[in-house]
Amino acid sequence: MNKAREFDQSVVAELKALLGDRVSTSAAVREHHGKDESYFPCAPPDAVVFARSTEEVRDVVNICRRHRVPMIPFGVGTSLEGHVLATRGGVSIDMSQMNQVLAVHEEDLDAVVQPGVTRKQLNEHIKHTGLFFPVDPGADATLGGMAATRASGTNAVRYGTMRENVLALEVVLADGRVIRTSRRAKKSAAGYDLTRLFVGSEGTLGIITEVSLRLYPVQEAMSAAVCAFDSVDGCTRTVIQTIQAGIPVARCDLVCEKTIDAINRYKKTGYRVAPTLFFEFHGSQASVVEQAEAVQAIAKDNGGMDFEWATRPEDRNRLWDARHSAYFACLQLRPGARAVSTDVCVPISRLADCVHETMEDVKSYIVPVPVLGHVGDGNFHLVFLVDPAKPQEIELAKQFNSRLVARALAMEGTCTGEHGIGFGKMASLRSELGEAVDVMGDIKRALDPENLMNPGKVVAL
Amino acid sequence: MNKAREFDQSVVAELKALLGDRVSTSAAVREHHGKDESYFPCAPPDAVVFARSTEEVRDVVNICRRHRVPMIPFGVGTSLEGHVLATRGGVSIDMSQMNQVLAVHEEDLDAVVQPGVTRKQLNEHIKHTGLFFPVDPGADATLGGMAATRASGTNAVRYGTMRENVLALEVVLADGRVIRTSRRAKKSAAGYDLTRLFVGSEGTLGIITEVSLRLYPVQEAMSAAVCAFDSVDGCTRTVIQTIQAGIPVARCDLVCEKTIDAINRYKKTGYRVAPTLFFEFHGSQASVVEQAEAVQAIAKDNGGMDFEWATRPEDRNRLWDARHSAYFACLQLRPGARAVSTDVCVPISRLADCVHETMEDVKSYIVPVPVLGHVGDGNFHLVFLVDPAKPQEIELAKQFNSRLVARALAMEGTCTGEHGIGFGKMASLRSELGEAVDVMGDIKRALDPENLMNPGKVVAL
Repeated sequence: MNKAREFDQSVVAELKALLGDRVSTSAAVREHHGKDESYFPCAPPDAVVFARSTEEVRDVVNICRRHRVPMIPFGVGTSLEGHVLATRGGVSIDMSQMNQVLAVHEEDLDAVVQPGVTRKQLNEHIKHTGLFFPVDPGADATLGGMAATRASGTNAVRYGTMRENVLALEVVLADGRVIRTSRRAKKSAAGYDLTRLFVGSEGTLGIITEVSLRLYPVQEAMSAAVCAFDSVDGCTRTVIQTIQAGIPVARCDLVCEKTIDAINRYKKTGYRVAPTLFFEFHGSQASVVEQAEAVQAIAKDNGGMDFEWATRPEDRNRLWDARHSAYFACLQLRPGARAVSTDVCVPISRLADCVHETMEDVKSYIVPVPVLGHVGDGNFHLVFLVDPAKPQEIELAKQFNSRLVARALAMEGTCTGEHGIGFGKMASLRSELGEAVDVMGDIKRALDPENLMNPGKVVAL
Repeated sequence: MNKAREFDQSVVAELKALLGDRVSTSAAVREHHGKDESYFPCAPPDAVVFARSTEEVRDVVNICRRHRVPMIPFGVGTSLEGHVLATRGGVSIDMSQMNQVLAVHEEDLDAVVQPGVTRKQLNEHIKHTGLFFPVDPGADATLGGMAATRASGTNAVRYGTMRENVLALEVVLADGRVIRTSRRAKKSAAGYDLTRLFVGSEGTLGIITEVSLRLYPVQEAMSAAVCAFDSVDGCTRTVIQTIQAGIPVARCDLVCEKTIDAINRYKKTGYRVAPTLFFEFHGSQASVVEQAEAVQAIAKDNGGMDFEWATRPEDRNRLWDARHSAYFACLQLRPGARAVSTDVCVPISRLADCVHETMEDVKSYIVPVPVLGHVGDGNFHLVFLVDPAKPQEIELAKQFNSRLVARALAMEGTCTGEHGIGFGKMASLRSELGEAVDVMGDIKRALDPENLMNPGKVVAL
């Protein structure tokens, strides 16, 4: 059941009868849907469909199930562990045309969107309301994809990840049932938390067709600051002390010297080339001043230089746009390279040790390795730039990553703070959670007994 | 499989071989474990065991499974929908002797506890650290029970419920496997969110034997205030406007005139007998003043009188102790009565309508019906005082509750904000989530194929 099968072309005929020219088997379209932002080689699906409604998704699922064809939901393809690759062939279900904001309930601080709406599109749509949606991975990903991968970002330290910010989902299951996981109330004790079961299930349990999300009022004062340090250790110590002091920073990100250099080149910015923390403070005028003063004092004790401020919205946006571009900027450090990205997250008390030991470890890598991350959560990334034509480079990067994962696990951390498992981290997941992974398999089998929903990702059956 | 069976006394012999005198079949002990704080008649288990370790729980589970005997975890028995009643007989596994705080990681703002530790015990234990655990249902429940029922309380509006505050669990499954659902990192994208699947599963998927919890720094300033209004409508309008303005209140609770009168009698307090909001504000001195001024202005616009303040810790504690006693105080309004409690939660924009229509509806009930709740979340309760010897009173209260649930669902709310499903709300769960309940059943079947873990609760198989 788990092996790739010969693709049954009658599936395409049935799909075309349903969707007309919104079914493609062209090489270009299939290739585009067979890769993400990871270094994994392209694994194209046999066909791509562009769905426009829940009913269409349900009908596609029913066709695929009857023919025992794998189905893989696709947003914009910015995952980092091969989540969307059609490693066993099948049909890629592109959700990008399901891109309507269905409702904005200003008075309840929530919105209901189709899964193809991107995070920037939503924020643009609600700009006039004085509300915003905080979860912001580097890419302008779709909210369906972000829910499916339990995405995170720079604001998570204050506002949480998709785990905390999805109120309810509509999901099409492998057997064609369409369920709604929860109501729109802010909290509920009504049965098993299906919402959070599907958040992070990476398309392996069902296909998300609607997402209800929490929104937040734009605060009276929102100020961003950049602070350069004489060492990465100084940065991490500052972060630890800030979090331990309970200062409610809205954002707290680290970029190393190499990363800031890459950003400067890519975005034509002029940041000082030094280990740097990016902060943001949200609240009333008075509380933002209080928070910033407290953090500045901590930074100063740890070798931090003066804060450079950005308070106007356009300046703050420019600053975080630079930060969000870091991954793509790093890729340019070695033209033609792909990235083997790492993603551990450790308890905050171990952050400095974990970053320090890791940077020592990777000193011997072929090229310098940028380090960056949402350190306020204990989450950081290394970007190993590899020549995709040289398997030995990929192998070497993977060895460093394995050691990093082992180090994080020894510190009671996780192998992935935000990128997810895909197929790239399945062995790490086993190292991290042991027999609990079998329980995930039990759940997968219960909801998708024929293993057709994004098979070969998260858990092996 | 679902019917009660004759209890096999050889189970008791095996349990006694394992636990000695920590196995009881006495009528008094069985009766104590056959009821909770609900109005449901006692349904005693056949035996009660007092576990002291995960290994003992696992061994008990293995014995029960071999004999196909139901098992029901028991904390302190303060659930409100019959969660712990042994409706099909079997063994009640009392966790109250597993009451050790295993670790406090001050620097990481977390703690690891055995499931029998109560919320007050934990807060007493960590008092010297400057940290606290916020989730506070009315009763001094066990943290294992609170995790199992996805408990909530007065602080949820700011700090979230057990959903947001459990970092990881250790769980004994029906087949005797012991799993750990997550690591201690603050966030993770490592596979399905088993932590949140077990939070709120009410003992039907496994038995929680260890809980890792988030802690929070005690804020520089924490001030509580009580504000009386000339109408409940004035209270609810104040709450809606406060939440919509994004003021980060730490607590925001409503007690109606009848409830405050009950509290005054029960706790010998002297609050003005009027619809009242209880607030608390956390933050720096400056931000607490800002928040309080903003809320006072809103309250004044809606018929609120002056704030009465409590800022010293002992005064704040007295105030919230009074609020927490509300349920028990209301019971005293009609000596000998039991309570049929309701628990809807609606989007905040519908709060005033839902409370208003409900109070109109219950005017005709036999005795006055107290209304109270964590209205900052849109969650409120009515306490129907019934004479347990008069089934027609219970029936009447249930009819009011059915109408209330229907009203809340029509407003996109939930049938239970915090009490959970137990067996009292299984039909309401179906009304709320439809086919999604079948998916819960699929998961239950996958993890507990013989339906031995607290059978007949949450989902019917």
